[in-house]
Amino acid sequence: MTSRPPLHCLRCARAAEGFAGCRTCAAEGIGVNTMPPLADLAGADLAGYPGGPWGLPTALPVSGPPVTLGEGNTPCIRLRTGPERPQDGASAGELWLKYEGGNPTGSHKDRAMAVGVAAAVTAGAGTVVAASSGNAGAAAAAYAARAGVRCVVFTNEKVPAGLRAQIDALGAERRVHPGSTAARNAAMAEAVEEHHWYPLTSYSSPSPGGNPYANEGYKSVAYELARDFAGRRIDVVVVPTSRADLLAGIGRGFRELAAAGLIAHEPRLVAAEPSAAEPSAAAPFTAALRCPDRADQERTRVAARPTVAFSLGEERPCWQGLDALWRTAGTAVALDDEAIGAERRRLAAQGLILEPSSAVGSAVARDLARTPGTLVVAIGTATGLKGLAG
Amino acid sequence: MTSRPPLHCLRCARAAEGFAGCRTCAAEGIGVNTMPPLADLAGADLAGYPGGPWGLPTALPVSGPPVTLGEGNTPCIRLRTGPERPQDGASAGELWLKYEGGNPTGSHKDRAMAVGVAAAVTAGAGTVVAASSGNAGAAAAAYAARAGVRCVVFTNEKVPAGLRAQIDALGAERRVHPGSTAARNAAMAEAVEEHHWYPLTSYSSPSPGGNPYANEGYKSVAYELARDFAGRRIDVVVVPTSRADLLAGIGRGFRELAAAGLIAHEPRLVAAEPSAAEPSAAAPFTAALRCPDRADQERTRVAARPTVAFSLGEERPCWQGLDALWRTAGTAVALDDEAIGAERRRLAAQGLILEPSSAVGSAVARDLARTPGTLVVAIGTATGLKGLAG
Ligand SMILES: [Zn+2]
Ligand SMILES: [Zn+2]
Repeated sequence: MTSRPPLHCLRCARAAEGFAGCRTCAAEGIGVNTMPPLADLAGADLAGYPGGPWGLPTALPVSGPPVTLGEGNTPCIRLRTGPERPQDGASAGELWLKYEGGNPTGSHKDRAMAVGVAAAVTAGAGTVVAASSGNAGAAAAAYAARAGVRCVVFTNEKVPAGLRAQIDALGAERRVHPGSTAARNAAMAEAVEEHHWYPLTSYSSPSPGGNPYANEGYKSVAYELARDFAGRRIDVVVVPTSRADLLAGIGRGFRELAAAGLIAHEPRLVAAEPSAAEPSAAAPFTAALRCPDRADQERTRVAARPTVAFSLGEERPCWQGLDALWRTAGTAVALDDEAIGAERRRLAAQGLILEPSSAVGSAVARDLARTPGTLVVAIGTATGLKGLAG
Repeated sequence: MTSRPPLHCLRCARAAEGFAGCRTCAAEGIGVNTMPPLADLAGADLAGYPGGPWGLPTALPVSGPPVTLGEGNTPCIRLRTGPERPQDGASAGELWLKYEGGNPTGSHKDRAMAVGVAAAVTAGAGTVVAASSGNAGAAAAAYAARAGVRCVVFTNEKVPAGLRAQIDALGAERRVHPGSTAARNAAMAEAVEEHHWYPLTSYSSPSPGGNPYANEGYKSVAYELARDFAGRRIDVVVVPTSRADLLAGIGRGFRELAAAGLIAHEPRLVAAEPSAAEPSAAAPFTAALRCPDRADQERTRVAARPTVAFSLGEERPCWQGLDALWRTAGTAVALDDEAIGAERRRLAAQGLILEPSSAVGSAVARDLARTPGTLVVAIGTATGLKGLAG
């Protein structure tokens, strides 16, 4: 009844089964996702696009019925960019924030989990599983509840109280794995292979990034931006990045739009990474792009350090993210906790409460918007409400 | 530069100044709001309406520049209505939830505060003030920050930790008034009259309802529903109700749409009220509509009691709400804390976490949707995330 499109490695183009990324590239120490082909958007009516992943269902690799809580179609808000010191002068470009905190569970993850859970249901799964100490777990729990399938979330001890309460209220089974990421990955691999649970997040090392079907939900961010800016040229899109699922998804969305002639120009993509005080610790993309050679960029490894934005950063750049940056002549910028805190205060002074991992995006974008005539969009990935009372 | 439209009492049609409602009707013990004339929507393009209060600025009584954080355009989600006991059978109608928790600060109040703060700025106010121990305070703080005006929020000791943190993070000045509502009202009246602070919420007794300009922001809920159901007949809209600002605003929106021929039929409006265990305590609309005579309905007074949904219910039905119910042959239904808790669990089992005061709406709507062929929309007024970790 449901023919899923075939998956191929983004890097070596080999066909692949399962959700562990490309085994051939993994043997080289490089985590590469395996993805379905890009969708053909020719003839799509962007002005009439209602937003969200299900607003353009033919662009998704899922043939079963949608699972939805009304995700997507989030607002894009122009931010003030006045000078902090009078001698700096006002910013000459435009700075916009796409506020993903407006999604049903409060983060961009809803776009992916809506599609991922639909793919799980289409595949006949009775249980979905996610490893997350953050918003992905809450989103998985919500969409599993919506679809009426069981959900297990592997977390660590560091999951904030608000998120824990959210996952519990949604009826998901929360399993705390106090051990290493490797131990958590092993437990999840066993659940997938032995019990045939459907994985909504990655569990192999080096991480290739998340579930390929789920990740296609992120393309809708690009579609919405193209619709809302309606022919205006978006110069740069800044994406807070850990495993680069969102970055890669947005990049794929813009590629599809450009291929169908629906946009004249693909924006430059910029990965914004939180970094511990130590330069480039926990900022693998920033570290990678300092190497002149792509072969070295692929094999970059940094020390994972906790930051205010992530409980533990990634050690290696997921290849899907490098690919997105390379294709758009993009770059990566790391900011430390102090800079992230300052940006959160700037956002609050404009009425917006975002998570630390979201503020890193607008902080980087704010700087890029100093260039006269530039239109820069930052993706504000999640609401800061969950952490306020925790 | 900015000519505000004149305000008139909804009940006696007398012209009025200020924000204390109609003094003549107040002398009769009836709290009646004074409102601008209805807008003329003739020729409006509903299909092209982008949503939110500023999506149809000519429908608003504010001539100055918009203040916006991307409020409105919230999703409308179809809820499952399976039988809880097999012998009940599945619900024969359709139950939809308009999820206002997706707004920037997490509640429907954003629609009003966006317009109210714009009205304040247009009026030249340097300070806005709101009395609230709930979402209105957070929304006032956010939009004041966005507009760059000072915000003072009068709260009581019962404000939940999450909301308190949200108001503080947004830079508003929080003043705790431990005394009675009357004392808080007096403090706010003094601020308005002596210091010329601009009031975003009501401070007179009996309460007429909120700021008339702000309240016009709620009309956009009706516009969005009419757009999204695109010609389908909406039979009933159920609105969680305290002072009936949202109920009255939605009613005005549908009246405008009907007058312009943009909808064929105005939905029946139903006020959903949380009630303490004691029947009809803190449920003034439900109590009022039990009286056969409108003159008695207007003068109803119930015992205010704390419920799980409101820290202290209203004692009297704001007249603007009665008016909305009368005009649509609507009604009011009160549910106790146990019924509200059960509905919250039902919503969580579909992936949605709402405030108790929001769940009362879908609980009432769920019952009305049992009628075959009926299309019922419940307004889910606010996210439940703020209360989770508090
Ligand atoms: Zn490969
Ligand atoms: Zn009057």
